[in-house]
Amino acid sequence: MNEVRDILTAVRDGKMDVEEALQELKLQPFQDLGYAKVDTHRKVRQGTAEVIYGAGKTPEQILGICQNMMENGQKTILITRLSSEAAVFLQDHIPITYHKQAKIGIVGTIPSPSGLGKILVVTGGTSDIPVAEEAALTAEVLGNEVIRLYDVGVAGIHRLLSHMEQIMSASVIIAIAGMEGALASVVGGLADCPIIAVPTSVGYGAAFQGLAALLSMLNSCASGVGVVNIDNGFGAGYLAAMINHMETRP
Amino acid sequence: MNEVRDILTAVRDGKMDVEEALQELKLQPFQDLGYAKVDTHRKVRQGTAEVIYGAGKTPEQILGICQNMMENGQKTILITRLSSEAAVFLQDHIPITYHKQAKIGIVGTIPSPSGLGKILVVTGGTSDIPVAEEAALTAEVLGNEVIRLYDVGVAGIHRLLSHMEQIMSASVIIAIAGMEGALASVVGGLADCPIIAVPTSVGYGAAFQGLAALLSMLNSCASGVGVVNIDNGFGAGYLAAMINHMETRP
Amino acid sequence: MNEVRDILTAVRDGKMDVEEALQELKLQPFQDLGYAKVDTHRKVRQGTAEVIYGAGKTPEQILGICQNMMENGQKTILITRLSSEAAVFLQDHIPITYHKQAKIGIVGTIPSPSGLGKILVVTGGTSDIPVAEEAALTAEVLGNEVIRLYDVGVAGIHRLLSHMEQIMSASVIIAIAGMEGALASVVGGLADCPIIAVPTSVGYGAAFQGLAALLSMLNSCASGVGVVNIDNGFGAGYLAAMINHMETRP
Amino acid sequence: MNEVRDILTAVRDGKMDVEEALQELKLQPFQDLGYAKVDTHRKVRQGTAEVIYGAGKTPEQILGICQNMMENGQKTILITRLSSEAAVFLQDHIPITYHKQAKIGIVGTIPSPSGLGKILVVTGGTSDIPVAEEAALTAEVLGNEVIRLYDVGVAGIHRLLSHMEQIMSASVIIAIAGMEGALASVVGGLADCPIIAVPTSVGYGAAFQGLAALLSMLNSCASGVGVVNIDNGFGAGYLAAMINHMETRP
Amino acid sequence: MNEVRDILTAVRDGKMDVEEALQELKLQPFQDLGYAKVDTHRKVRQGTAEVIYGAGKTPEQILGICQNMMENGQKTILITRLSSEAAVFLQDHIPITYHKQAKIGIVGTIPSPSGLGKILVVTGGTSDIPVAEEAALTAEVLGNEVIRLYDVGVAGIHRLLSHMEQIMSASVIIAIAGMEGALASVVGGLADCPIIAVPTSVGYGAAFQGLAALLSMLNSCASGVGVVNIDNGFGAGYLAAMINHMETRP
Amino acid sequence: MNEVRDILTAVRDGKMDVEEALQELKLQPFQDLGYAKVDTHRKVRQGTAEVIYGAGKTPEQILGICQNMMENGQKTILITRLSSEAAVFLQDHIPITYHKQAKIGIVGTIPSPSGLGKILVVTGGTSDIPVAEEAALTAEVLGNEVIRLYDVGVAGIHRLLSHMEQIMSASVIIAIAGMEGALASVVGGLADCPIIAVPTSVGYGAAFQGLAALLSMLNSCASGVGVVNIDNGFGAGYLAAMINHMETRP
Amino acid sequence: MNEVRDILTAVRDGKMDVEEALQELKLQPFQDLGYAKVDTHRKVRQGTAEVIYGAGKTPEQILGICQNMMENGQKTILITRLSSEAAVFLQDHIPITYHKQAKIGIVGTIPSPSGLGKILVVTGGTSDIPVAEEAALTAEVLGNEVIRLYDVGVAGIHRLLSHMEQIMSASVIIAIAGMEGALASVVGGLADCPIIAVPTSVGYGAAFQGLAALLSMLNSCASGVGVVNIDNGFGAGYLAAMINHMETRP
Amino acid sequence: MNEVRDILTAVRDGKMDVEEALQELKLQPFQDLGYAKVDTHRKVRQGTAEVIYGAGKTPEQILGICQNMMENGQKTILITRLSSEAAVFLQDHIPITYHKQAKIGIVGTIPSPSGLGKILVVTGGTSDIPVAEEAALTAEVLGNEVIRLYDVGVAGIHRLLSHMEQIMSASVIIAIAGMEGALASVVGGLADCPIIAVPTSVGYGAAFQGLAALLSMLNSCASGVGVVNIDNGFGAGYLAAMINHMETRP
Repeated sequence: MNEVRDILTAVRDGKMDVEEALQELKLQPFQDLGYAKVDTHRKVRQGTAEVIYGAGKTPEQILGICQNMMENGQKTILITRLSSEAAVFLQDHIPITYHKQAKIGIVGTIPSPSGLGKILVVTGGTSDIPVAEEAALTAEVLGNEVIRLYDVGVAGIHRLLSHMEQIMSASVIIAIAGMEGALASVVGGLADCPIIAVPTSVGYGAAFQGLAALLSMLNSCASGVGVVNIDNGFGAGYLAAMINHMETRP
Repeated sequence: MNEVRDILTAVRDGKMDVEEALQELKLQPFQDLGYAKVDTHRKVRQGTAEVIYGAGKTPEQILGICQNMMENGQKTILITRLSSEAAVFLQDHIPITYHKQAKIGIVGTIPSPSGLGKILVVTGGTSDIPVAEEAALTAEVLGNEVIRLYDVGVAGIHRLLSHMEQIMSASVIIAIAGMEGALASVVGGLADCPIIAVPTSVGYGAAFQGLAALLSMLNSCASGVGVVNIDNGFGAGYLAAMINHMETRP
Repeated sequence: MNEVRDILTAVRDGKMDVEEALQELKLQPFQDLGYAKVDTHRKVRQGTAEVIYGAGKTPEQILGICQNMMENGQKTILITRLSSEAAVFLQDHIPITYHKQAKIGIVGTIPSPSGLGKILVVTGGTSDIPVAEEAALTAEVLGNEVIRLYDVGVAGIHRLLSHMEQIMSASVIIAIAGMEGALASVVGGLADCPIIAVPTSVGYGAAFQGLAALLSMLNSCASGVGVVNIDNGFGAGYLAAMINHMETRP
Repeated sequence: MNEVRDILTAVRDGKMDVEEALQELKLQPFQDLGYAKVDTHRKVRQGTAEVIYGAGKTPEQILGICQNMMENGQKTILITRLSSEAAVFLQDHIPITYHKQAKIGIVGTIPSPSGLGKILVVTGGTSDIPVAEEAALTAEVLGNEVIRLYDVGVAGIHRLLSHMEQIMSASVIIAIAGMEGALASVVGGLADCPIIAVPTSVGYGAAFQGLAALLSMLNSCASGVGVVNIDNGFGAGYLAAMINHMETRP
Repeated sequence: MNEVRDILTAVRDGKMDVEEALQELKLQPFQDLGYAKVDTHRKVRQGTAEVIYGAGKTPEQILGICQNMMENGQKTILITRLSSEAAVFLQDHIPITYHKQAKIGIVGTIPSPSGLGKILVVTGGTSDIPVAEEAALTAEVLGNEVIRLYDVGVAGIHRLLSHMEQIMSASVIIAIAGMEGALASVVGGLADCPIIAVPTSVGYGAAFQGLAALLSMLNSCASGVGVVNIDNGFGAGYLAAMINHMETRP
Repeated sequence: MNEVRDILTAVRDGKMDVEEALQELKLQPFQDLGYAKVDTHRKVRQGTAEVIYGAGKTPEQILGICQNMMENGQKTILITRLSSEAAVFLQDHIPITYHKQAKIGIVGTIPSPSGLGKILVVTGGTSDIPVAEEAALTAEVLGNEVIRLYDVGVAGIHRLLSHMEQIMSASVIIAIAGMEGALASVVGGLADCPIIAVPTSVGYGAAFQGLAALLSMLNSCASGVGVVNIDNGFGAGYLAAMINHMETRP
Repeated sequence: MNEVRDILTAVRDGKMDVEEALQELKLQPFQDLGYAKVDTHRKVRQGTAEVIYGAGKTPEQILGICQNMMENGQKTILITRLSSEAAVFLQDHIPITYHKQAKIGIVGTIPSPSGLGKILVVTGGTSDIPVAEEAALTAEVLGNEVIRLYDVGVAGIHRLLSHMEQIMSASVIIAIAGMEGALASVVGGLADCPIIAVPTSVGYGAAFQGLAALLSMLNSCASGVGVVNIDNGFGAGYLAAMINHMETRP
Repeated sequence: MNEVRDILTAVRDGKMDVEEALQELKLQPFQDLGYAKVDTHRKVRQGTAEVIYGAGKTPEQILGICQNMMENGQKTILITRLSSEAAVFLQDHIPITYHKQAKIGIVGTIPSPSGLGKILVVTGGTSDIPVAEEAALTAEVLGNEVIRLYDVGVAGIHRLLSHMEQIMSASVIIAIAGMEGALASVVGGLADCPIIAVPTSVGYGAAFQGLAALLSMLNSCASGVGVVNIDNGFGAGYLAAMINHMETRP
């Protein structure tokens, strides 16, 4: 129900005077003014998945939210930072696929990929894969074709260079690395598409839980690189999905 | 000249044997193998501007680079971090427009805007404008229509909200703020397009030359936000231009 | 007993000479000089609760302190940072209500609210609720009416704006947020009452255990914001209670 | 003019239909909806001064803003972080009093003090006085009686203790200190009113431009202490003024 | 045996020629040259305790070292950072007194106190007591009379002031505090003897595991304060013992 | 198989024309161009060990890699950061020697030492030994004679000086220390060979997990010191081995 | 005049009743209670110099303070952080000796040395000398014999070792170093007297303005080391003077 | 003269008894014991240059040191961090070549190169050249052939790859980069020789004056990389020279 419309109708019908209506409008929750799009800003486009941030929620809470969404017709739900224990609990109640490494649960069907092109997810090492899978699965659930290219760190640059074809043809690249985070700069120098850089907390000592990689990526000498928080695979996958679904806005 | 072709031709003509050719190929500079696209990765698309990073270069060096580019047919050149003194020197030799606040010089004509839509540049305060202009002019030179929306910081949220129309219709938003950098999160929550967040060194005390804003933006609770280096207006303008020119890649 | 009075009486009665008295006074503990108000500075006003910081104390120690206070007529005791185990132990000996999320135990009755108006406790997310409850319960025990407004983070600004009525009518607002901590600035911009900002350690990566939110809040572009330590819900509740009980001091 | 009223009137008069009005309302700037209080949140109460942040504005810009305010009937204007040069320029055009140490300019008359009581401004050393004067003058311009108590650092605790009378009778205390910032804790322990702590950048070496004092104040073992940014005298004066003007809010 | 003397004797007796002796001397371990005092620098004066740093050593290793020392006539051994488990093991083999809070084990007898005067150990709170006990027991084992004055933090300055007699009569004061570490400055301002300041990791949030207290103490506005590492009770006790045993050196 | 040779042969034999070959070459993985040395850059010289970084790999994965290497004729394999559990698993399948302290597993035979001279591994304390053993074993596996000199920290400089002979005759020195990391400077001042400095995370409080030692070593006042990451024994051993095997390069 | 005595006398003489006297005492400034020693805590012993911290004071202010002190019979005044310009001004009015490198001015006569022994001031390099001179002159003005031993950094340990005699015979040692600050540990290991360590801001890059040296010194593996603030030569000289004048306190 | 020999001779000749000699030896400066090599540890090999650190020395001091060295037969002197002004002064008195960019002055002749091979100096950008020249000139003065390869940053990896021949044939590589410092990892992955990584303070914002590059290089995923201080070109050149002159040590 749209209460603003009700107020306007009451005014039109002489059931409410102008001053009274003015007063009422001040108190209206904003979304009633038609800012529904505000409420739905998290959707890249119509029909895509809802997202639940699983950390800090009980299995029961997550189940409740899922069931509510499903009842409201949501076809795909992405649950991030979902523990194995919670996943086991959920599997008893709803159809859910759990990706252990990425700590991601997916309820419902992954939509067939759309978008401008492919999203390439590259990592510097094998230890970065959990973050990479969070990014890749997020992008897939949001309707993107994802190419995975793991363990192509800059210490063996030929491994990266031998995949130039994929790098050159990607629509968006998510570059994920811990330690010194040099991957973002090198990939940024090779590719001519937007790069989302994700520092990871992989490393020890002066890696300072991802700080070294973060600073490195922010200072990338390559153009066209945007950085997200340490280990934030979801954020990178989401932003990449947005970019890969860019459309003309008149 | 393409030396790899020469080698292949020599092999075909029997003037060089296979082992000898193999040896030669190992030593070839990479670009000779046709990786010209590597060399040109800095171009968002054909015909756009070349960029010169002016800081740390003498006026004479900048002039030399410009003249060389112009002789090679470059129609538009963007010079960032260009001092007033260097600009005055250049104006005696080449046609250049100097934007003092942004410290940007533009040689040649700004192309008429293309791309998917408009790039919105928003700032938290008036002190952020130099960085904003660097971003805006960069985006314009790279062929984008830019809307400027300055001094709409979150301490007066109604100023920002009164421009919902522009926020909702933007193709990409560059959110620029110093101090606590909250603008990126608020804008990220309102818009449904990619946000490039630029922390600025505006502020004092615990702003720590932009560190507070940087950390704030990296931790944005809104999805779809990528961050660039402190005060890096150029990087934001460049990435936004890339995103605004996304095309289908089969 | 007031020893200073005894000394003075002895001097008056000629039982102690002046020099001797002078010497004695130097050694008197300060409170004996009537600085009893120094000793009781922790009381917001007469009759309110005593506070015990539970962390680092054994259940037996806490019990002892409580029993001592109760014997001295204390009607309400607030125990912060109280573990579940200690709470269980205490419940066997004294009437105590334990609030698990806030890790707060309350002995005795919560006084009926007084003060100038209502204290509004707002949080950015649901993960901030433990800190918020520590603040809210502290304020309630200290005799304040508290309104809770949780999970109204700035990434969905309409959620916050739809509660303008409460924000505008609050006497003091406690703004609690982790991650980028932008809530304090936005609320500070909307309200015209004092804001106590509480950064929380909620977040990961570049949140650096609350540092990002702390710096953000210290740099708030809104006026009228004071900041307390990370996760310091008690401190915020206490300060808010003080402000809400301001009285004319001639 | 209130456009929302116009729209409502048009609906009442049948000159605009409900759907059309609904569409119009979505685009209305927020203040038109009566959020004038949002716009005026910076006023502690009716009739007080407007504030201009002088840093980063040209003397001409400041003059323009002042003249505009004065034409609109503003009786008192506070200009913070105003350089001597700008002050000299302004003095040629408008009646302004310049406080060099505090870098504050005051246009118009300082209102006679109101509020619940006195604001006490204490500093640890003489080097903290510029920040203290910014706080004190801000509070005075906002209609408060201010008591100054400078150079009473904790290394000579008797200096502070000899002013117990003032400390005990203050309505709000602003405690300003650099170096180790211990003043806030000691004053917080002595007083029973809210304390606004201001770390200053006074000190050298491991003071790290105010970081030591900032951390010290955030960790104050005394209750009832809120902290503002390093060197932020204005913020402290403003918040203290707010607290000193607390009124019953039903 | 002194090998240098042997060499010299051999030279004197003509059994070794000068060049040969010169060569030998280059290879002599330094202590053989009589730098025995180098080797024994850890002794404050003849007859005092040996110290074993227990962390990172197995119970068996500690036992071995103790037995070796005891066989060599050592009367008192101080073992710091000794775990409860290791203490239990040791108690089966050698006479040892274990102080659980301080994690200190003492083998043998504590010497009767000597030195210039008393060492006063003060703490800000009760949570600082483990560090304080490490300091106090270290000083006692090294032959000092120790006065303990715990939980006299600056938030209740009268508690500290009521012990002026002890503060004024101490020979050396060890000031131990976490959180904001203001105790060192206040005590330093009251006393006229050397102060050893020990920051502790007590606190949370912006205490950053003792960093706030450390910076605070290093920036103490009081003269005569030396700082040791965070939680380094042993170091403070040792340095205080040294100072309390100062003797004339001609 | 070398695909580049195949292409060249096809060109020579007229089975592929030049343009077609040119196109093919662009897509060739780099190592096919003969950059095999790129691929083998991790080998100090022919015949030495392969290295597996054990952290973050499952025992099964490590086993698989080992078996693959062994089938390809690898005689010696060094596994770093290998957990006890993984070592136990591996011992059931392949001949492996496990060094628990260093967390290093060695498959196959350690080659007899070669190189220019000896590598001296010195540590400041006994707690640094795990890192030292990682360095020493790495160097040994890579064909170097290693001298161990442990617990010769600078607080007892005579211990270090009594080993001048070894210090002066070393080919490369690996100086390993936590806490204040002064060992690198002192050894660097004594020796006339390259020093590899390894800060360790040994220490507490202001050691900040190795940061103090790291900064100390980077600022060494001695010349000829290169630093590796905190606790990076492997990196130091590897670099030392490289330096100890320097050969004439024409 | 002692007001407390007056009050007591009035009570004794029956001119003031007990309650009235009690009230009066509450308001007495503390020093009137005989806490004169509090006021004079900055004096190491009777008759020594007063200290003025020159930074942030105008030449006129310094002159005024000096003249006031001199009129009150002060024989020696130490002015630290005194600029050349201020010194030139002072020289026109009072007899003052200015030490440019140390930025120290001394008014009056330096007392002949007393104390237990000699204070040894050692520096790592020549760039540390300004801080060293501040320490040395401070100690001399406070009545100590000072031995200077400069540029004996640990990179050439023999330079330090060749002065073992002086190190062993010192009463207190002030160890001053920038860069890696290793000097404190090495000296602490050689000497058997208290060491005051002073980190300096000498160095560049990762020296971080003295932070590296500060952390290094706090983590010294030698016992008996206390640290003061970066570049705080005065603080070290003062503390050393205190220690060198230790006396029996019954 | 060797005083130890004199003592031994006196003992042999019966002119000094053993106890007396023992006493004398304790006081001998260490170098007299033949540790002359300690004193000359700064020489890579006989005949090379002496080094003067010019920063913080007056032109007159530098001149004095140079003249003294020249009188003692020193053929080549390297002066680092030499200002233009000092260089101009020196040129009036001694034959000196000044390299302005590197701030290096060279007195005398540069020796003809020796060593195992060539030292390759690579930089990420043109702004890194001053540091690179400091490194290159240092290495040349110390008798090494140096190849310069500037502005081959990783954002254009082909530039680096086109110089594989030089990278593969280098004896030691000095990799110099600011911003994200990724160059060290990429070069370390390509080369099979020791890499000395030098972070520079080039960059802005989150480069934090070289911290980003420093952390990046310390975390290099390539093996065989040692890091020196930020901007420490001299240190890198010196260490590289040492490594390039490695010789067999029996």
